[in-house]
Amino acid sequence: MPPATPASRSSAPPPSCALVTEPSRSQLPSGLLVDLYELTMGESYVAEGIEEREATFSLFFRTLPQGWGYALAAGLEDALRYLEGLRFSDDDLEFLDGSGLFGERFLERLREFRFRGGVRALPEGTAVFPNEPLLEVTGPLLEAQIVETMVLNEIHLQTLIASKAARSVDVAGGRTLVDFALRRTHGGEAGLKVARASYLAGFDSTSNVLAGRLYGIPIAGTMAHSYVEAFGDELESFRAFARSYPDTTILLVDTYDTLEGARRAAVVAGELAEAGHRLRGVRLDSGDLLELSKGVRAILDEAGFQDAVVFASGGLDEIGIAQLLAAGAPIGGFGVGSKMGVAADSPFLDVAYKLVELDGRPVLKLSEGKATLPGRKQVWRVRRDGTAEHDVLGLDGAGVAGEPLLREVMRDGRATWVESLDEIRDRARRERESLPAGVRALDASAYEVRVDPELERLRTRLAAQVRR
Amino acid sequence: MPPATPASRSSAPPPSCALVTEPSRSQLPSGLLVDLYELTMGESYVAEGIEEREATFSLFFRTLPQGWGYALAAGLEDALRYLEGLRFSDDDLEFLDGSGLFGERFLERLREFRFRGGVRALPEGTAVFPNEPLLEVTGPLLEAQIVETMVLNEIHLQTLIASKAARSVDVAGGRTLVDFALRRTHGGEAGLKVARASYLAGFDSTSNVLAGRLYGIPIAGTMAHSYVEAFGDELESFRAFARSYPDTTILLVDTYDTLEGARRAAVVAGELAEAGHRLRGVRLDSGDLLELSKGVRAILDEAGFQDAVVFASGGLDEIGIAQLLAAGAPIGGFGVGSKMGVAADSPFLDVAYKLVELDGRPVLKLSEGKATLPGRKQVWRVRRDGTAEHDVLGLDGAGVAGEPLLREVMRDGRATWVESLDEIRDRARRERESLPAGVRALDASAYEVRVDPELERLRTRLAAQVRR
Repeated sequence: MPPATPASRSSAPPPSCALVTEPSRSQLPSGLLVDLYELTMGESYVAEGIEEREATFSLFFRTLPQGWGYALAAGLEDALRYLEGLRFSDDDLEFLDGSGLFGERFLERLREFRFRGGVRALPEGTAVFPNEPLLEVTGPLLEAQIVETMVLNEIHLQTLIASKAARSVDVAGGRTLVDFALRRTHGGEAGLKVARASYLAGFDSTSNVLAGRLYGIPIAGTMAHSYVEAFGDELESFRAFARSYPDTTILLVDTYDTLEGARRAAVVAGELAEAGHRLRGVRLDSGDLLELSKGVRAILDEAGFQDAVVFASGGLDEIGIAQLLAAGAPIGGFGVGSKMGVAADSPFLDVAYKLVELDGRPVLKLSEGKATLPGRKQVWRVRRDGTAEHDVLGLDGAGVAGEPLLREVMRDGRATWVESLDEIRDRARRERESLPAGVRALDASAYEVRVDPELERLRTRLAAQVRR
Repeated sequence: MPPATPASRSSAPPPSCALVTEPSRSQLPSGLLVDLYELTMGESYVAEGIEEREATFSLFFRTLPQGWGYALAAGLEDALRYLEGLRFSDDDLEFLDGSGLFGERFLERLREFRFRGGVRALPEGTAVFPNEPLLEVTGPLLEAQIVETMVLNEIHLQTLIASKAARSVDVAGGRTLVDFALRRTHGGEAGLKVARASYLAGFDSTSNVLAGRLYGIPIAGTMAHSYVEAFGDELESFRAFARSYPDTTILLVDTYDTLEGARRAAVVAGELAEAGHRLRGVRLDSGDLLELSKGVRAILDEAGFQDAVVFASGGLDEIGIAQLLAAGAPIGGFGVGSKMGVAADSPFLDVAYKLVELDGRPVLKLSEGKATLPGRKQVWRVRRDGTAEHDVLGLDGAGVAGEPLLREVMRDGRATWVESLDEIRDRARRERESLPAGVRALDASAYEVRVDPELERLRTRLAAQVRR
């Protein structure tokens, strides 16, 4: 399937290759984008003289949304950019000073703030399961604490969206998938990250032009109802668009009456063919997409335009796509908007960022339903004949058989691991293909994550200590 | 109730007062943040010579989420800033040129692009119902078309969140509500806008420090479990925090055992009192919040600290708050995070931006389930004894009795209507209080919106014309 058209791809290299030197355009330029308590805890750490103790925090989610069998790790590049770029400006410090909450020592410490720690993480596009660390941050307690809010935010959004988008890829059977979400994503920044995350997961293109420029993602689009209405006459509007795009036009046929619109599209397809051009297809955006796609397909076929694609949009996500395809809808491509772009069935993951080690001493919390596993960790994936069979979650350095998944991605505050978006997209494809079929199903079966006995013993021992 | 603490309020004026001169810090600086089809339609409008025709687009939503009785209009300030600031840079134009999709005439038109149109809108904080325009944009067809994507995006996010947050305000009975959402909002920009929208709807404060600086919203926070773990000894951690904040501390008591934590908090409260200070309260973040809040309240009361507040967080939104309060939970304040910050039960509204008039001629579309009402419109609210009784949706200029709600907010591309965030917040409060109780209930009854007969006749006539 070609991408929905008009489509284009920037020749510029994806900006992911310039991680170290180029600040993210979507990054908000203030250290104050943080939960207040990170700073008040920091004030106390400095007052108590414990701010330089080496701390490790682990970022993970506890559960997958209903029906989801896996998640795809994403957002690491933006998280690393955040860590590299975090500073407190004079304006920031003036605001904090004016709040009356902070002493001079802490504010001076913020004035010199640089994140100087290290990060181990799952490369973006890696399949990940509950309780497995997506990343671990090790650094001075103050620094590793303050970055909590936005490291969570960066990893959360793209992991959520990549995981949701992957489900559409899993059911679309190679048909074209276009991100149409920008108008209803939670802000423009979210729109950019949704475009990146859905492309990473296997989408073909995005309607978001800036995402095309920033990330090198192919851009695609059709036309709006307002275009047809602006001409008043549907056939004249179709002819006008085809004049501008004689080889890449997809006509929106449901402004007034879908089947009538399809007949007019066939007229324009004939006129284009006579002039040596070709109608790329039509789009349906309302009504019974199964019945209408069959009716429209028949009209195009009878007119001799078997190669014109029927493209569908309007309230779709993996559920709708799977139902349409299971019922035999002759649809060649899908525009997937709001339901993917806000992960409508589960718009957040229960991600957490928890202290697991301090000065080499493993720690944990016991909060009901939210207890944590202590210590720096590693995840090992055990495969058989190329298929992932189970994972083992254990303490870093434990002698577990299998492929270790967390790798160093930052040292001394500098990213040490940079990949292009296409490399990440390739990994996501390989990862999805290596999962058991049941784990990729819409009503997925669970994938087994074993806790290494050494880690289990440590947890039991520490919990008993704390309770004493 | 005091806000959760430490809390502080910037003395700087809210930046909403500087609308015309100061670009939003959260605005992404590129005209390319747009769906591709806005630009390909623009290419065709220019090619066909119809780009200067005067068009009016209407922005509305079709349905309210299950159980919601009303929405609060929000996001207008950022939408107007977007319209004032929209430009296409040389880099933008170079990217578009390289796509091969656009001719020189169109690109030259973009080089000079300024939005020169007008906007009529509901002031932020106004209660709004399905099919009522939140705003109408009138301007040259090309300009009013291109702004579609981001005007929708800006209005959508804050209207969604303000409406969701208002439901918590409706059930909290004046108890403190703090926005805790930043870590799981869809990006940092969304976090800022969630803070603004929830404050507008009646929240008391936010954990988002940058929102405090940018919008003048009071900031608040407590401490994380990692803080307690960093000290190993819970009592010592409580004492340390109280040393830094002897009058504003709220202690997180559920890291190990909630009731034990509350007893230790009472110890620290006693030590503070001896030194002439006061423990502000404790926070619960896990477990059975009803039972635990009663147990913790009893411990604090028995120790003589009736004025220390029990603050609760963890997976709460209006549903959880209402259940806790109905069951008599002695909770004085709530941290409301992800479920409000992503509007978890309905993370998008079905907002649309539809052409309704071109060169003075009303237009409509008939797409199944998505038909539109033609013409420029007005909404009149009919009140009785201060309570809103019903609205009338009609053509602008129709002689309908009632208070017209849409007002001019932009003329010739310049904002003509600027309000402070506190003015908007006051309006939201008045609007909520003027709604019938059933419309504000969690399982709300519908509010009546009548369609003026003149508008109904116009729709019928135009639909018949189009079908002929």
